[in-house]
Formats: sequence, structure tokens, C-alpha cells
Amino acid sequence: MKVLITGAAGFVGSALHNRLQHEPSALGMPITEIILTDHAPQPIAPKASRTTWTQGDLTSADFIAKLVAHQPDVVFHLASLPGGEAERRFLAGHRVNLDATLMLFEQLAATHPCTVVFSSTIAVYGAPLPASINAHTPLRPPISYGAHKLIGEILLADYSRRGLLDGRSVRLPGIVARPMQASGLASAFMSDLLHTLAAGKSFVCPVSSCATAWWMSVRCCVDNLIHAAQLPASRLNSDRAVQLPVLRLSMSEMVDALCGVYGPNRRRLVRYEPEESVERIFGRYPVLDDQYGRALGFTDDGSAEMLVRNALNR
Amino acid sequence: MKVLITGAAGFVGSALHNRLQHEPSALGMPITEIILTDHAPQPIAPKASRTTWTQGDLTSADFIAKLVAHQPDVVFHLASLPGGEAERRFLAGHRVNLDATLMLFEQLAATHPCTVVFSSTIAVYGAPLPASINAHTPLRPPISYGAHKLIGEILLADYSRRGLLDGRSVRLPGIVARPMQASGLASAFMSDLLHTLAAGKSFVCPVSSCATAWWMSVRCCVDNLIHAAQLPASRLNSDRAVQLPVLRLSMSEMVDALCGVYGPNRRRLVRYEPEESVERIFGRYPVLDDQYGRALGFTDDGSAEMLVRNALNR
Repeated sequence: MKVLITGAAGFVGSALHNRLQHEPSALGMPITEIILTDHAPQPIAPKASRTTWTQGDLTSADFIAKLVAHQPDVVFHLASLPGGEAERRFLAGHRVNLDATLMLFEQLAATHPCTVVFSSTIAVYGAPLPASINAHTPLRPPISYGAHKLIGEILLADYSRRGLLDGRSVRLPGIVARPMQASGLASAFMSDLLHTLAAGKSFVCPVSSCATAWWMSVRCCVDNLIHAAQLPASRLNSDRAVQLPVLRLSMSEMVDALCGVYGPNRRRLVRYEPEESVERIFGRYPVLDDQYGRALGFTDDGSAEMLVRNALNR
Repeated sequence: MKVLITGAAGFVGSALHNRLQHEPSALGMPITEIILTDHAPQPIAPKASRTTWTQGDLTSADFIAKLVAHQPDVVFHLASLPGGEAERRFLAGHRVNLDATLMLFEQLAATHPCTVVFSSTIAVYGAPLPASINAHTPLRPPISYGAHKLIGEILLADYSRRGLLDGRSVRLPGIVARPMQASGLASAFMSDLLHTLAAGKSFVCPVSSCATAWWMSVRCCVDNLIHAAQLPASRLNSDRAVQLPVLRLSMSEMVDALCGVYGPNRRRLVRYEPEESVERIFGRYPVLDDQYGRALGFTDDGSAEMLVRNALNR
């Protein structure tokens, strides 16, 4: 089995290919080749001989043709320009999040019907988010990132209906704990909270203590991506899209969990200085009816403390 | 005011530009130039001096650039490969219904924020259609045509949110009465029924007498397209999409209406020979909750008999 991962140098992509290298049967069949691609340089030398690293520009049809020539059986299409950055740099977001996705799906569909796991996003829902989100919530993306991801979902569903691809779009919440560097994500503070308190440093939180957000560790995210690749197509709805289950936690619940792992003195390191613009988007995550995703076998981290441990490898 | 119409040689496009030529103030401001474009040759010589006919291929970025250079204030983007044909010729449909729309919107947005009226379709809903359709019905296009049109809607809403375009997607039902020729539309029989009975010829109907469909005349459709162009953006939802009101009529109600206009002897000209595949798609149109469209001032034909008269110019 050959696996292609786009965005392989990214936060989720790195964790996914590390997992597949350490568990070469994670997808049910032995992996013979992992093709990793990213526009960024190879972050570390691959340890396994079956790994091919290909740096390049996914907005180039010729580069995509090189990737597709490997004839992957499973594709994890994770490459994207994050939401905050795509909103600031509209054309760059259009190229990466829309054009590249269209070309990749088109070229894969023209070759052979492989399995495609597409990282979609909770940004497909409207803003402000409705009071509860379920399988019937209308999709009205409030940012271009969400619009372009939703377009990818629709295309993938149509290719799947036609039997040209076997698609699975998984809608990810913010994944923690990303490295503390400019990620272009408006939700970066969620990861920063974890790293900063873990390091015993003080943290100014841009949302209030009662602000609720949806949380998932990168470990749990990788579990879900691998699960998505293995699900029988017959269990999926025609839209081929799944909202992943999440932990819905307030900032103070997250701080409690960090205290549980690192000690109660962490609590006084946090000062809440809510910024209206951040609070509006990231402070009011509603209750999520994630029954459909759970019934399909997708999971959350289990508890806030497990989330902290999974996110920080403790 | 300059107006661009794509698909101008088509059934709806022809009716629209005829109307605008005869009512040059139909859009509120005097029209100084109408740019008509189609891949088909110019059907008739334009009567008004302010009309420019440009034959060309909308799947070419260079050709689109020529059109956009006119700097239209209002664009009616009607060009598309019809649903039945797009389903049979997937790549051709992809080029026309998806790629051309993406390029047109992108180039228009890069120039100036004009008004864009986009002809979307009831094929954005699922198949089989749910028991009732309203503003909250999930959008799960059952054919590629519907998927590509829905993608156009989402893009147009995002461009509109960003202030780069001022979009309005109107979801059209089957429009009657199209000329009796291979239109590529799976719903062609709906128009054929009208023409055939009007001509006093016998008609074999591929759905049952109680089959319900959604009906709109081309005259009513043009009214609605013109109305869409003039609606204040502030009255539209963030998805910028409107389901047009329709008349929901069974085939026997349509035959009654034809008898009302052409005489009761028309009734015996119809023989019902339902084909399972046609009946499944075009025989079970559910009740449509079109309150939102009506509240915005969109209309149906008023009655089955008015529909017949509007459709056949009686």
C-alpha cells in the first residue's frame, strides 16, 4: 500500500507520518511507500527507507502530476494555508486551499479511484455559530478558508458518488498543541496556553475564563485521520463529510486540567484580558451534536487531562 | 450601465437580452451597453446598437479577460452545460460549470465589485428530495451539475462577504417551454409536453399523471433574474442564495391548464407511460417552502394557465 501525505511538514502532517512510520500496518495493510510532500523543506531526515520526500508547490499542475504518478492507494490531503492567514492573503489562500485541491482531486480521479482523506474544518459552519451544531446545521462559511474547504468537500463527495475517488472529509477543530510560532492560525492562543503553562510561564489569555472552545490533541487527530482512511465507504453519508467529536471546554476547565498535570500553582499564571474580536469567534463555541461521528467510531481525547497529556506528550 | 450576459444564445439568455433590449431601463438605470457572449454563434443580429456580441470559449482565461475588460456593472452568469449532459460528459461539465465559473468570478473580483446574478439550480438539493424543502434543507447535490453550481454559490457568497463582488445566486427549477430539440436536459419532456399539446399532437409522457414537478415559464424566470440584480444586498442572507418560488403542479394539472388555453380535446392526446428512472427524479418534487424568496419579491407564474400562456407566448 502506498500513502501520499500533502502538508507533510505541517503540525498534523508530521505527526501522521511519524505514526505511520512507527506503525506500518496502521492502515490495515502493510505500507510499502510513504510519499511526503510540502512546500516547506524536509524538516528531518526520514528514518524509514520506504519514505520519499518531495518538496514542491502544490499549486503547480506539473508538480501534482509527479505526486500522482506514484499511484498512491491512500491520500491524506492536509496541505492548506491556515484560516487567519488565508483571510489576510486571499489570493494565496485561493491558490492553496482551492486551486491546489481542485487539481489534486482531478488528477487523482483521472488515474485510479484511491481513498482520499481530506482535512476539512469547523470553519464550514456560520458565524456566529448557531446555538447547537448537528448534522443538519446549514453550512455558511464565515471565512474564505471555510468556503474553500467546503468546496473541497462537495467536489470530493461528487467524485466519490461517481466512483472516481473514495473520499472522506473530516472536519477538524483547532488541534493542540501547535509549536509556539506564528502559525497563521487565529486560534494559536489555544496551543500557546498549553505550552506556556506547561513551561511555568505567565499567560495573557485573549478570551474570558468562561469562553468555550472545541479541543482535540494532535494524537487524537491522527487516530481519527487513520480511522477515516479505513472506514467502509458504505457507512458514510452521500456528502462523505464527518464532524469529528470534540471536547467542549471552557478556558478555566483547560487551566484546571493543566493544574492537574503540572500542579495547582499554574492557575495564578493566567491573566484573562478578553479581546472582543477573539472572544466573538473563539469564545462562544456551542454544544456540538457529534453523535454521527461517534457512531462511525471517531473519538475525542476522553478528558481534559488526557487532552493535555496527549497534546504535550506527557 | 453595462450588462454582461454569459450563455446569451441559450434559452433563458436569449429571453433575458431580448427583454433588456426592449426595456433598457429594466435594471433601474439606463443600459448603455449589453455584452452578449456564448460559445454558440450569434443566433440573430442584435437589433439595438448598444449590443456587443462576442462568441468565444468561457473555459479560456484569455477570453474571459476580454469580457471583463468591458467592466460590466451587472453580470448575468447563465452559461452552463445542462445537468443531464454534464452527468454524461463529466470533464466537459467540469470545464464549463466549474472551471469557467471560478475564472469568471476571480477575474471580475480582481477588477471591480460588480453585481453578479448567478443561475444556480434546484439540483443543489439531494436525491431523492426530502419530503419538504426549505431554507434549512441540507445541500447534497445528487449530480455533478448541482455540485458544481453549489460550489459557484459558495464562492460567490465568499466574494460578496469580502466586498469583491455583489453576488446573488438564484436557484432555478426547470424552465419552460424550451425549444423541442436535444437540450441535454433530463427535464426536457416538461417543455415538450407544452409544445406538443399546443400543436395538437399526441404526447407520450415519461412520468405518471400524478407526478408532481416544479414549473416556471421563461418570462417569469427573466422577471426574477432582473429582480435579483436590483435587490439591495442588505436583504440577502450571507449565502446570497435564493430558491425561486415555483408552481408545484402534477402532470394532469398541467394538461388541464393546456386544455384551458387550447381546448379540452388536448386531454386525449396524452398517454402516460412512466419510466422508472424519470419518474424517480422528476415525478416526486416535494412541497417547497419558498417563503424566503417570496418575501424578497420573487414570484411564480401565478397560475397553471398563466404559466402556459407565459411559456408559449399566448
